[in-house]
Amino acid sequence: MTHTVENTTTAPSTDEAVEVIENDLDESARVPRKGGRDKSGAKSERSDVVVARTDVEWLGRYLLGTWADVRLASRELTARPEMQRIEGQTMADHRERVFGQLKLLVEDGAVHRAFPKEQGGEDDHGGNIAGFEELVTADPSLQIKSGVQWGLFGAAVLHLGTAYHHETFLPAIMSLEVPGAFAMTETGHGSDVAAIGTTATYDEASHEFVLDTPFRGAWKDYLGNAAKDGLAAVVFAQLVTKNVNHGVHAFYVPLRDPATGEFLPGIGGEDDGLKGGLNGIDNGRLHFTGVRVPRANLLNRYGDVAEDGTYSSPIESPGRRFFTMLGTLVQGRVSLDGASVAAAKIALTIAVTYGNERRQFTAGSDTDEEVLLDYQLHQKRLMPKLATTYAASFAHEQLLTKFDQVFSGAADTDDDRQDLETLAAALKPLSTWHALETLQEAREACGGAGFLAENRLVGLRADLDIYATFEGDNHVLLQLVAKRLLSDYSRRFAKADFGVLARYVVEQASDRAVHGSGLRSLAQRVADFGSTARSVGQLRDPDAQRQLLTDRVETMVGDVAAKLRPASKLSQKAAADLFNQHQVEIIEAARAHAELLQWEAFTQAVEGDAGAHGVGAGMDDGTRVVLTWLRDLFGLGLVEKHLAWYLLNGRLSPQRAQAVGQYTQRLSARIRPHAQDLVKAFGYGPAHTRAAIATGAEKTRQAEARDHYRDARAAGTLPAPEKKPKVRR
Amino acid sequence: MTHTVENTTTAPSTDEAVEVIENDLDESARVPRKGGRDKSGAKSERSDVVVARTDVEWLGRYLLGTWADVRLASRELTARPEMQRIEGQTMADHRERVFGQLKLLVEDGAVHRAFPKEQGGEDDHGGNIAGFEELVTADPSLQIKSGVQWGLFGAAVLHLGTAYHHETFLPAIMSLEVPGAFAMTETGHGSDVAAIGTTATYDEASHEFVLDTPFRGAWKDYLGNAAKDGLAAVVFAQLVTKNVNHGVHAFYVPLRDPATGEFLPGIGGEDDGLKGGLNGIDNGRLHFTGVRVPRANLLNRYGDVAEDGTYSSPIESPGRRFFTMLGTLVQGRVSLDGASVAAAKIALTIAVTYGNERRQFTAGSDTDEEVLLDYQLHQKRLMPKLATTYAASFAHEQLLTKFDQVFSGAADTDDDRQDLETLAAALKPLSTWHALETLQEAREACGGAGFLAENRLVGLRADLDIYATFEGDNHVLLQLVAKRLLSDYSRRFAKADFGVLARYVVEQASDRAVHGSGLRSLAQRVADFGSTARSVGQLRDPDAQRQLLTDRVETMVGDVAAKLRPASKLSQKAAADLFNQHQVEIIEAARAHAELLQWEAFTQAVEGDAGAHGVGAGMDDGTRVVLTWLRDLFGLGLVEKHLAWYLLNGRLSPQRAQAVGQYTQRLSARIRPHAQDLVKAFGYGPAHTRAAIATGAEKTRQAEARDHYRDARAAGTLPAPEKKPKVRR
Repeated sequence: MTHTVENTTTAPSTDEAVEVIENDLDESARVPRKGGRDKSGAKSERSDVVVARTDVEWLGRYLLGTWADVRLASRELTARPEMQRIEGQTMADHRERVFGQLKLLVEDGAVHRAFPKEQGGEDDHGGNIAGFEELVTADPSLQIKSGVQWGLFGAAVLHLGTAYHHETFLPAIMSLEVPGAFAMTETGHGSDVAAIGTTATYDEASHEFVLDTPFRGAWKDYLGNAAKDGLAAVVFAQLVTKNVNHGVHAFYVPLRDPATGEFLPGIGGEDDGLKGGLNGIDNGRLHFTGVRVPRANLLNRYGDVAEDGTYSSPIESPGRRFFTMLGTLVQGRVSLDGASVAAAKIALTIAVTYGNERRQFTAGSDTDEEVLLDYQLHQKRLMPKLATTYAASFAHEQLLTKFDQVFSGAADTDDDRQDLETLAAALKPLSTWHALETLQEAREACGGAGFLAENRLVGLRADLDIYATFEGDNHVLLQLVAKRLLSDYSRRFAKADFGVLARYVVEQASDRAVHGSGLRSLAQRVADFGSTARSVGQLRDPDAQRQLLTDRVETMVGDVAAKLRPASKLSQKAAADLFNQHQVEIIEAARAHAELLQWEAFTQAVEGDAGAHGVGAGMDDGTRVVLTWLRDLFGLGLVEKHLAWYLLNGRLSPQRAQAVGQYTQRLSARIRPHAQDLVKAFGYGPAHTRAAIATGAEKTRQAEARDHYRDARAAGTLPAPEKKPKVRR
Repeated sequence: MTHTVENTTTAPSTDEAVEVIENDLDESARVPRKGGRDKSGAKSERSDVVVARTDVEWLGRYLLGTWADVRLASRELTARPEMQRIEGQTMADHRERVFGQLKLLVEDGAVHRAFPKEQGGEDDHGGNIAGFEELVTADPSLQIKSGVQWGLFGAAVLHLGTAYHHETFLPAIMSLEVPGAFAMTETGHGSDVAAIGTTATYDEASHEFVLDTPFRGAWKDYLGNAAKDGLAAVVFAQLVTKNVNHGVHAFYVPLRDPATGEFLPGIGGEDDGLKGGLNGIDNGRLHFTGVRVPRANLLNRYGDVAEDGTYSSPIESPGRRFFTMLGTLVQGRVSLDGASVAAAKIALTIAVTYGNERRQFTAGSDTDEEVLLDYQLHQKRLMPKLATTYAASFAHEQLLTKFDQVFSGAADTDDDRQDLETLAAALKPLSTWHALETLQEAREACGGAGFLAENRLVGLRADLDIYATFEGDNHVLLQLVAKRLLSDYSRRFAKADFGVLARYVVEQASDRAVHGSGLRSLAQRVADFGSTARSVGQLRDPDAQRQLLTDRVETMVGDVAAKLRPASKLSQKAAADLFNQHQVEIIEAARAHAELLQWEAFTQAVEGDAGAHGVGAGMDDGTRVVLTWLRDLFGLGLVEKHLAWYLLNGRLSPQRAQAVGQYTQRLSARIRPHAQDLVKAFGYGPAHTRAAIATGAEKTRQAEARDHYRDARAAGTLPAPEKKPKVRR
């Protein structure tokens, strides 16, 4: 074998197995060369060589995806100082500033893209979310507060209401004349919306709904715009008419007198006060005592009450009706997914830039020795996070595309909507947790400097903390995903007996094997390979990665399904207990599914098909090599994370499993020289990162220190070090 | 087998293997019964049964450890509102408040315990730290600010200075008349103290030291008391005399004019501004230009300069001198370890209390169904953290005892000091990270309520974030531990060839085998056991756990040592490269060592020997059963976390490995009914937790909601649910 990929890593390898791996990899990367250049810009001398490099401009455009123009426009907006957070403001000042920024958004016209053309909008659902999620780089409070106003309050009127509501309420919502709250969550029931206690009882005499909060746990809670700014709210309540509870419906309810800012009669509330972050938003609590609204204020797209109190709905099943209504609000999850990816990109841009400049524990202070990112540990801490960020970014683009197809009507069957909800429920937990972990790792990787507010990381982390539990608690969302996986599974096997179920997994894995070899038999043949390098060579194959990841999901789902099978014969309580005994497995299966979705998205992106809109054309071979390394680091990183599972379930031989960890470490080292380019491709400039340590200041300081010692040494003024005493042995 | 331990878990198990495990466990817990009672207080009917229960009062006392009285006194202090943080204060107000609180500490007399009796102290080193670390529950800013004043600034004068400095400077430091900074860290060199750039050059003509900051990277940075309050500082600088650099020494340097608060001539600085937390402390930067201090201001315990400029030191080796000086400051790490444990205890007290009251996704709102903590996932999230907190708490007690022995002079040989430093460097990373993870998990487990400042979790997490990187970056500390492990290892095998080294690990494991059977052979016999239960029975044996954990440390150290062995023949650069290629393994070995130390401490505590001061007498059998479960959850949780390693290295058969995860889940379920008692034993009352959600308010709300529905149903006023449409199949 010959070296066919330029390896810009300087650290020599002394591990033969790893060396062989590298050769093994290199061979596969021997693809026709298309004008690749090495880092210095010089053309390689060997004509058949693909030089790993990153075409930052091309990749940047690729990452921007389908709604590139909207994103760029939004980034121009977030680069304006008046849109940005001022660290250290009091809660009151911060709230006022963010409210003012919302007005700027209105002036900019950027927040109306999703609204109907009849109301002056653009009917552009994907573009609306793309632009909106970029606001996180200015101030997450701004992102979420505008999300409350137009993405929740406004979107509820849009999607749950009908023409009357659009005409009557949307203009003032769009213009911010009426700031509003989205009053769904209650103190007593966080993610369990079906169980809310607030009631809206139809009064046949007056043709009004009467809203009531029956007990303290039914107070609406954590609502943005509720503590101070909200003049109205969309209130979710159990709709009761003719003494029948038709389940959760939404009502448009005025809250405050616009003239005085005082609550209207029957309405009360309080401020949630200071929070761990997002303090530019006035979250608060609301409660209702005999609050009357006209019958027409019921947002009646999915359920209506006639003047005589007769209830009707286009959706017969109360359960399906409930999920359909909630499904129209999926954009919150979609946008949190995208915003989290953006925050992770900012974090890595800061940490990689600093890690590429900062020197520490250098042997002599006047030498040009390693920067932090040359340390193996630092690579281990940041490179996998970089790979995951790329995966999450490409996965989000697919989610956003799906969202746009459903909401534009291009593909909005029931199945499409369910797929969208499942995809959002799968990706939002992973990306929000990933953002927190990345911000924290970046903070620690920047040491004390990372703790200063001026370097952004702590503030962003504090703000994004709540993303893990709002718009659906992450674990609850994963459980939803698992239920979908299980129901898909059982639907296919509704009549099958246990034996069939048990066989299913193996067959399924075989069916999916692209090269016609089932994964299990592949694993069993491992022992024959006889060399670590060969093992890794196989693992680099995307089909092998796909099989490993897919097989794990399917095996876990199949296992759980088999364990839950007796539930259908049990009482409701016993069935719930059985489910609870496997809850951890169930959620782990959903997580595995979500990880697979990210991997598939990344793999499609490496193949030039990120957005399904042709934006992937023109990827050069060098960039493809780097992206492939990143994808492999992500995919094999997942295998490494779950290595015990693969070993316990006989999917990997110990030999091959051992190679996985060695290889991911090697990949981190190989990606390291491209790290700066890879964060540059995220496209966030100094106006977005706004971190003192990511401005080159550290490099300047390092150079100054080095020059000082060099000059002093040259001038003979540097004091000599104390002589070491003679060693006595 | 018969059930001999009362199992208060309600969820029935349907997994036969797990059932057998339980029986298997029960048998081993058949110990002479000493008045055990079940939860209801009723005596069991069977006389040979040990009822798992927690003697909260006894356990609480046990956890308080050797310095129980000091801790209780400090907790009384932290229960006083004027000592506590007010959430949402501006940085300026918070700083002022904390400075005022320091004065209260002086009035209280609690901060002088560590100082010499001659200066009015008590020479009580362990007690001083015990009292100090409890301050974290009032406000981490208060803890750290007082740590800066008395634990760093004052302690440096005490430990690095001599009688003159004690007499001259300590009284004003102790009384807070002179607030001071500990000026060690520089912008350009975080944890790399040896490389600082500040110089103190002796001027033979004036008999003064002249302090200079040669470049921007040598500015002192992140110093508490530097931005505002500090009138003086202990400044670390390269001591230069007669054109020889004798390395880092400490100097007492006045900073500001007490009358005006202005910097003295030659001194400048700036405010570090807002941080991610600890904003009650005025961290800042300092720089020096030709600042002159008398020769006597050199803190000269370990190095002195005569009037004529001649340098002398009682420690010949500059390296050893440096580490000896730094070693006197180990108490910072010791106290961060203890404060982190306290914070984790607060977090779990809040989350467990809330999880025991909060209902979610209950089938009907008027039922007494599961609370959050009944969910398997919730147990998985919190019970292992509870076990780790106990482990960290007992490990800290050992660290504090060791610290006290060294600093009181009871046992302060070089070896003792090195052991203390290694122990502190091992435990501080684990406990500080554990606190952050626990605070975050608790925050998420409490949902939106966890994000409110009024529930403490977010504020504590923000404050403790920096604990992971100050007083030594956690990874740097683990690297120190690894170097110690490697040097111990190589010392024993200085002349051994590679073959001997390779054999060492196996022999070592055999040597340690308490029952005379080496672990490897144990593992190889696993296949013969034939039953999961039997496998788990073995794993519950503390000797088996010890062997698994010890073997992993020793194997990893041995492996790394073998890989690093060529380094002695390489150039410095090549040796550093070799080291760097194994840095991740090296740090992982240190982490494994630290985990083992925690496990050993926990095991000693289960055996009634937590503090080596006889405080463990009188443990009843029921409490021992619960503590043993917790210890097993901790120990086997570590095995589970590193399961891939055990499988890859042939230490566990797949069968036995599979049982580990099932069993830890089972242990979590088994501990769950004791969780409230276990957090109660931490001894933090409402004045310390100060979280609205941990006051019983949630329980009241739940009861009110339940009563509402029950009453309405009884009165016939509860609207009927909409009938489900007929199912069409």
